[in-house]
This record gives sequence, structure tokens and C-alpha cells, in this order.
Amino acid sequence: MSILVVGSVAFDNIETPHGKRERCLGGAATHFSLAASYFTDVRVIGVVGEDFTAEDEAVFTRRGVDTRGLEHAPGKSFHWTGSYMNNLNEAQTLNTELNVFATFSPNVPDAYKDSDLLFLANIDPVLQMRVRAQMPNVRMVGGDTMNYWITGHRENLVKMLAGLDALLINDGEAKLLAEDSNLVVAARKILTMGPKALIVKHGEYGATAFFSEKAFGGNKRLYLPFRAPALPLAEVVDPTGAGDSFAGGFFGYLDSQKEITLENFKRAMFYGGVMGSFAVQRFGTEQTQSLTREEIDQRFALFRELSHLD
Amino acid sequence: MSILVVGSVAFDNIETPHGKRERCLGGAATHFSLAASYFTDVRVIGVVGEDFTAEDEAVFTRRGVDTRGLEHAPGKSFHWTGSYMNNLNEAQTLNTELNVFATFSPNVPDAYKDSDLLFLANIDPVLQMRVRAQMPNVRMVGGDTMNYWITGHRENLVKMLAGLDALLINDGEAKLLAEDSNLVVAARKILTMGPKALIVKHGEYGATAFFSEKAFGGNKRLYLPFRAPALPLAEVVDPTGAGDSFAGGFFGYLDSQKEITLENFKRAMFYGGVMGSFAVQRFGTEQTQSLTREEIDQRFALFRELSHLD
Repeated sequence: MSILVVGSVAFDNIETPHGKRERCLGGAATHFSLAASYFTDVRVIGVVGEDFTAEDEAVFTRRGVDTRGLEHAPGKSFHWTGSYMNNLNEAQTLNTELNVFATFSPNVPDAYKDSDLLFLANIDPVLQMRVRAQMPNVRMVGGDTMNYWITGHRENLVKMLAGLDALLINDGEAKLLAEDSNLVVAARKILTMGPKALIVKHGEYGATAFFSEKAFGGNKRLYLPFRAPALPLAEVVDPTGAGDSFAGGFFGYLDSQKEITLENFKRAMFYGGVMGSFAVQRFGTEQTQSLTREEIDQRFALFRELSHLD
Repeated sequence: MSILVVGSVAFDNIETPHGKRERCLGGAATHFSLAASYFTDVRVIGVVGEDFTAEDEAVFTRRGVDTRGLEHAPGKSFHWTGSYMNNLNEAQTLNTELNVFATFSPNVPDAYKDSDLLFLANIDPVLQMRVRAQMPNVRMVGGDTMNYWITGHRENLVKMLAGLDALLINDGEAKLLAEDSNLVVAARKILTMGPKALIVKHGEYGATAFFSEKAFGGNKRLYLPFRAPALPLAEVVDPTGAGDSFAGGFFGYLDSQKEITLENFKRAMFYGGVMGSFAVQRFGTEQTQSLTREEIDQRFALFRELSHLD
């Protein structure tokens, strides 16, 4: 099995109450790839500049991530500067330099076309659709988006959503997208826009999955939502990439399974939470670079103990 | 088994996006009593005025609640007016008339002294301590409080906490009490103040229990926190009393069990969520007055399906 992710690869300057880091390797595709790499084969599509070194690329390849889809363009890589000094739950963007990312035009290499799953990380919905169209036979398509596209590019976003099997966003994004302040009502609306499953991330409170009647083969059974916990942590060092690590753990686990059943979907939600909990324990991708599958499964067991009766 | 609750009995004027109600029977002790009554024998201590009718009292007695501790005082009952028009998650208090509650001085009737559990609902910590002192041999003591006592009466509150086995508060109250914005750190601090267990209510995201090493017989094993879900609801009619109904379900279930084990505690967290989810589906105590144990156990099964793998 293999999963293809398209999204940003970036350098991040990050400030949190636990310290400051400059030029951390980051970006949604990076966090996603590393998290998913513990479960399945990962292929990445993105663009980097001349400042992206062989050592940066080795962060991917050491985890077995296929980087043949990483385009090396003239100029500098995408560079983001953010601070969590006021609020650990929400980054304050201090500076964004798109650089080579401004003209990113993703194409799927032939070698990637047999990927089983596709994840469209948070980029322009026009580009998400462009990649989606090049992968007509993929088993499952997941996607992410953000307020910027919801408010300013709604028409394109709605078109993009029609091509998704699963959308992963947070509470605020779901309510904004559906224009409703009740999460259940918002979820029902979003599920009429295309996705068969909506995963809403609640940060420290975990995540909830909502399903349309078309999910899991469309037997029209009305599925109950599913809630996965997050790990209560005494120390959150750097929240950057938590959501993308969740997505990587979630889709990586799903891709490693023969069938996408409701039970596998639930377990994938737990693995998403597990990878998100690791991501925030150190700066950038430091923690997600250096895990073992055993540590991941131990934490999965912890998540179960944390939330299960008996 | 039997549980004794001391707290407010009130009339509430409530406005929510779903409508307006005047003189709903309310108050923490009322919501708690009705929720707990589905699990165990309940005894209530409170004060009401001359406007409290036989029909109001019948709301308690129809559910088998022992009202011999309800003091009938000259004057009017406690009257609260609140609105959820701006935010369904937080009541805006428009008016508070303490009336007979202003001089409330609770005493435990002899007939109540053999109660197994005691719940000190949100009242002045001086009064909570007064009741606590009259129940030296009780099996377990739970308590609630609010920002008003945390900020303005901290010294008394801290003394009261020393006599509690379990404290039930929400996220904001826990962080304010501990003066720390990280919930895990806040919980650890609060657990050094006396309670062996802290239950933090997250509203629509459920609740988390944290345990000190003194919990469950003090075997010094380090307990993992435990997370119970809330039911995602498309319609929240009236949030008033959700937290007290959670507490009633939680302590009511615990009191019905021979032993207070970790496993019973976890199930009690689920029953707390179940009773909270019923409470918000209609105005005031309308829903909690008229349930069956079968409906409650069906929803318990739903909570399990909502949150459990396999």
C-alpha cells in the first residue's frame, strides 16, 4: 500500500513559551509524511528552493519517504514565522514568505500514479483539484483546508470538496464552512457537500468523526459519530504540525489496512491522536523523526486505557 | 445506599435560541437530585420560600427524593434570570435574587446522618464545610464551586477542598483555581489541595478525571487520567443544569455500587455524561423528571459505541 501527499514543505521560525527555533523543517506535507511513514509507504509532492539541503531531504528519506515528487525550484523555500506566546492553541503568524511556493503547480509523477490513498494538504483548492484529477482510480481521497480558502475562495473549495472522501478540519473551520455554530448541524451540512466522512479536530479534546450515509459502501445505515481522545499533556512544547501529524497517523494507518471499514476508521482516529500527541512534545519534526512503531503502539494502548471502560 | 446533596433550589427565568421559560424549577440541588434519583436514594438539603408550592415539591417526591431537609422559610425562593442568546456554552446572568437563600444555614437532619455519599453543590464554602463537619463518617464527599468563590473567597475554599474526595468543576474554574493555563499541571496542583479525584467538565467535549496517588485506597499507583465523551447533539435547548445533572448521574451511579473502584468511577463518568446530555434537551428539569432507567442505559450504550474501539 502507499499514500501520496501533496502540500507545503517549509522552513519555520517558531516561538513558544518553551523556547525559540529558527529554520525548523516544517510544512503540512512534511509533518504528514513523517507521521504516515510509520504505517505505510509515503510519497510526497511539493516544491523546495535552493536553500533546501541534502540533509533536509534526508529527513524524509531516512523515514523511507519517496521524494521524487519534490520539485527543486530556483529561489528560496516557503518560510513561515509564528508565535504561540499568547495562546498555545492558536499560532499567531508573524511573517509568511511564499517564495517558490507562490508559483507551485503540482504534477503527479508517473511513478506515483498507482498510489492507493491521496491526501490533499491545505493548499489552494484549485491545486488540490488539479492533483485529484490526475489520480482518478485512487482508493480514498482525504483533504484539509483553512479559513483563508473558506472565506475567500469558497466557490473553488466547494468544487474541491465534491471530490473528497474525507475532510479533516478543526471546529472553527467546520462552523465557518457550514455557517452554523452547532457542530452536529455543521457536520451534516458539510457531508452534503461531498465528503463521506468529516473529521473535526478539537485540539486537546480529541477529535470527532461524522459519517454520511454513503460511507463504507453506502449501505445507508445511519452511523453514530465517533469520538477519539487526545492525551492530556503537562507540557506542550510546540503545537506546529499537530493537525498534519494527526492526518498522517490517520491516513497512514488506514492505508496499511486491506479494507477501510468502520472499525479500521475508528482505530485510525486513535492513531491520528497518537501521532498528534507525539508531534507537540518537541519542536518542529524533532519527535516525529525519531519514533519507533513500538512506542507508537504503546501510546495507542494508553489512548485506549484513557478512554475505555472495562 | 443513599446520597445527600446540599445546594440551591431556585426558580429560573431562562432565555435560549429555542425559546423562553419563566419560573422553571431549578437550582443545583434540584438538577442533582433528579439526575441521581434514577440510581439511588436521594436526600436534599436546601431552602425554599413561600412561593414554593406542593406541586414544586412533588417534582422531587415523585422521583422518590427525600425532601425532609428542605427548609420552608418566610419570603421568596432564590430566583435566577439568565440568557444563552449570545453563547449556548455560557449563561449570561441577567438578574439574581437570593431571597431566602441569602441567609441559608444548612443543618443535616438526624434522619440524613447515615447517608453514604455527600455532595456539596456550589454554595459558600463556609456552608459546605459546615455540612461536611456534620457528616464525619460519610463514605465519599464530592463538591462543586465557581469563579466567584475561587477569586473572592479563596482562603475558605481551600479549607473546604481539604475535606473533599472529589471535586467537579469546569476547565476555566480548574485553571483559575490552580492559576495555571495547562490543564494537566492545574489538575496536579488541585490534587495537592485535598481531593483525591478531580473531574473537569469540558461541556460538549466531555469530561476528564484526574487522580491523586491517594485515590482508591492509596496504593500509590500512578493513575492515568480518564476521558468520558459527551454526546454530539444537533439541538441544545437549554444548557442550564447540565453540570449538576452530570454530577447527579456520576455520584448517583457511584452510590449505587458496593465499592468505589476505578472501573466504577469510569462508568460513573459515562453516566454523568448521559444525564448531562438528557438535561440539555428540554428546558429546566423537564427531561430529567420524566426518564426511565431503560432510556438511561440505552444512552449509556450509545456513549460506549461513540467512544470505544471493537
